Amino acid sequence: MATVLDLRPGEITVDLPAEYDSGIYFIGRIRTPWKKRSDCPKQGDPDNGPVCRIEVDPRWQAALDGVERHRTYQILYWMDQARRDLVRQSPRSDGHTRGTFSLRSPVRPNPIASSVVTLVGREDSALLVRGLDCLDGTPLVDVKPIVCDHA
Amino acid sequence: MATVLDLRPGEITVDLPAEYDSGIYFIGRIRTPWKKRSDCPKQGDPDNGPVCRIEVDPRWQAALDGVERHRTYQILYWMDQARRDLVRQSPRSDGHTRGTFSLRSPVRPNPIASSVVTLVGREDSALLVRGLDCLDGTPLVDVKPIVCDHA
Repeated sequence: MATVLDLRPGEITVDLPAEYDSGIYFIGRIRTPWKKRSDCPKQGDPDNGPVCRIEVDPRWQAALDGVERHRTYQILYWMDQARRDLVRQSPRSDGHTRGTFSLRSPVRPNPIASSVVTLVGREDSALLVRGLDCLDGTPLVDVKPIVCDHA
Repeated sequence: MATVLDLRPGEITVDLPAEYDSGIYFIGRIRTPWKKRSDCPKQGDPDNGPVCRIEVDPRWQAALDGVERHRTYQILYWMDQARRDLVRQSPRSDGHTRGTFSLRSPVRPNPIASSVVTLVGREDSALLVRGLDCLDGTPLVDVKPIVCDHA
């Protein structure tokens, strides 16, 4: 079976830089009903999607104080199963390729995804939200309120 | 003068993890008119803000192919001047603090900012956009089209 690590016809890679420029802390894990990529919805639904659980590490729990002030959040997470070296890719595997920055594919130099969710509850260090579309166990990178037209 | 590295009354820090969990590549630089944080607008304006220039490193230039297909983009960038260890912070320096994840402050475990911009032009490896609010020279992390209600 094809994985996100396989190359498809026409796809173009580059040599990655020898070193990272900075580092990411995984600040928690996202729990969803989806165990395989093929099970994930193409896009989350902040109104009617299933309630998923964002588990924040105890170290960062105090940073959740006051989250109830907002209803809509932007969640950043790390797509840790994707390769990072494609500049042209073929999302439909049909030989037609497009530049990585014209796509929202998980395959990109920095595999950070951004989803808009509705906050429906909190349990200590966990947030309950609707609107995610990622694999169960995905590493969490950030939680930001959406205020006005920020996204 | 206070910087983003100073602690304000009531703010609470945690010990950062000993190691990063993954790494970030800076894929370019953002050129804006703002040389100091105090000069930056509080929020970018994708309609009437000044045109800023997103300079993508030559390594990644081919990844821009096809960006003209979309008008609205999400830009992720790295707020490299912010401390990362605050769980409660006081944006107004008035002794009142809130949890980091209830704020969009640059001070957070992973200092990734997300802005929505309008694409107004392209010159080889540079994008011309309206809607940014960051310092001149800010490291670029990602460029993603906004499609439907993704953000």
